[in-house]
Amino acid sequence: MPADTTLPAAVTIREVGPRDGFQNEPERIATADKVRLIEALARTGLQRIEVASFVRPDVLPQLDDGVAVLQAIDVPDDVHLSVLVPNQRGLDRALELRDRFHEICLFLSASETHNRRNVNSAVDDSLAAIERMLPQVHAAGLRCQAVVATAFGCPYEGVVPGERTLEIAGRLAAAGADEVGFGDTTGMANPLQVRAFFAAARQALPNVELTAHFHNTRGQGLANVLAALEAGCTSFESSFGELGGCPVPAGATGNIASEDLVSMLHEMGIETGVSLPALLDATRDVQRVLGRPLGSHVLVAGPIEWATA
Amino acid sequence: MPADTTLPAAVTIREVGPRDGFQNEPERIATADKVRLIEALARTGLQRIEVASFVRPDVLPQLDDGVAVLQAIDVPDDVHLSVLVPNQRGLDRALELRDRFHEICLFLSASETHNRRNVNSAVDDSLAAIERMLPQVHAAGLRCQAVVATAFGCPYEGVVPGERTLEIAGRLAAAGADEVGFGDTTGMANPLQVRAFFAAARQALPNVELTAHFHNTRGQGLANVLAALEAGCTSFESSFGELGGCPVPAGATGNIASEDLVSMLHEMGIETGVSLPALLDATRDVQRVLGRPLGSHVLVAGPIEWATA
Repeated sequence: MPADTTLPAAVTIREVGPRDGFQNEPERIATADKVRLIEALARTGLQRIEVASFVRPDVLPQLDDGVAVLQAIDVPDDVHLSVLVPNQRGLDRALELRDRFHEICLFLSASETHNRRNVNSAVDDSLAAIERMLPQVHAAGLRCQAVVATAFGCPYEGVVPGERTLEIAGRLAAAGADEVGFGDTTGMANPLQVRAFFAAARQALPNVELTAHFHNTRGQGLANVLAALEAGCTSFESSFGELGGCPVPAGATGNIASEDLVSMLHEMGIETGVSLPALLDATRDVQRVLGRPLGSHVLVAGPIEWATA
Repeated sequence: MPADTTLPAAVTIREVGPRDGFQNEPERIATADKVRLIEALARTGLQRIEVASFVRPDVLPQLDDGVAVLQAIDVPDDVHLSVLVPNQRGLDRALELRDRFHEICLFLSASETHNRRNVNSAVDDSLAAIERMLPQVHAAGLRCQAVVATAFGCPYEGVVPGERTLEIAGRLAAAGADEVGFGDTTGMANPLQVRAFFAAARQALPNVELTAHFHNTRGQGLANVLAALEAGCTSFESSFGELGGCPVPAGATGNIASEDLVSMLHEMGIETGVSLPALLDATRDVQRVLGRPLGSHVLVAGPIEWATA
């Protein structure tokens, strides 16, 4: 069989479990467990980890120990840590710890209804707020990732036209975002849509890193990854143990599992820098902490030998 | 976003739940339930259903009522029913009911070890047996599907070279098979391998229908479907409720779910002829019969509105 040379040779993965995953857990996770799990993830070869959120503690008590986590973790220098910031107040709090992480994630939704329900703001107002915050992020010597949620579809409004998502991404890029992420927040993207979108986005925004964040809500998470790879995307987000990511309705799948993503990429010969056995060790640890079986496929079935390298 | 015109406009799906799915169920399913479920599936728009097995009843007691099922079911004329036959004795028994179905499925494994463990025979001997049985199938006025299991990987031998699988498929085609199916029996295929394989297979065997049968063992089932579509494959197999398909180890996922497959295809604008709501009704019925929550993603999350047409 002839080799396929149309896909990227290597990709970068941001592990979002410690923020996006943990925030969906109803039972309190001890700070010491969070620290140990982040440190384990940071030694798997993952290059990026989202580790904390500066959302209001009363809104998200599970993540109210973000400062303690950031102060405690000891990770290799080449692992880039990011924190999520919803607004100016969160940014002010985050910047007090600016020497403990590398990137700040600012976000909004592509759909008006979702943005209003999520952050009680019009999309244009959220864009303006990000445009005000972004220079402060850079002035603090930090990298800025801007994320567009509901980038492909919205549970309230239906399909989100790619042109609209691209228009928002263009504003974020013009404001100086180093990276723009596209979140399929409720798992409504399909591979054709993804491939066309990333092809157009790479053409429109050649100087910004573009990141794909898919959910597996309807089972298409890795098919969407394949489609994004085909359009040249080299940056992905996922969550160990398939944790988090808007599992609506209850019981539904959210984020794609990091183990499943890494396994597929390695099976296809695409480098991630991640040790799959080490990642699975971290996932088994979080499964033990959470006390319930987690849903990632490779955790249950085990990796294929040639994906573990 | 420009439309993508590289994928097939329509595909054919064979539902294998009533055979491949049911045979993995430890608790006896009543014949009346099987009949009702097959009849419901046959009214969803599915064009093909595998409904029975002529494996020895003492080996597979769950399917020992195949004759009763075949005699009872009342399905539309344009729904093609198939039965699985492992050997000459099974074929003899099946042919006694030749007016109750349309297709016979003969099978072997691409890997020597899997074939020996599954049917206690060398691959060459299984090929010779299929070459002896195939003319009898045609003489009875029936269509013949020949299936190559472990077509992409074998749990005992590792990766199965595409050349080896193609060589076996070529012998099956030369023997007169109307259709050759390729089973990823333990979920070891990856999208690059699948795309290269189906591209080569279509070139080598232009006059035989080629069918893809993927498992979701490591979460890549629908990514493999996408890859096969990209290589021009238009025939797929799946199982309602994600039933069956060698779930090894216990708890692992087997066959891709028909609901998830149909939803992805419809979201991409690819016609299946299947009513997704009717299919989900059948899946809810089998979930009730089996008395446990089933794992298909679309069953849990619900379909996207534009996939239900």
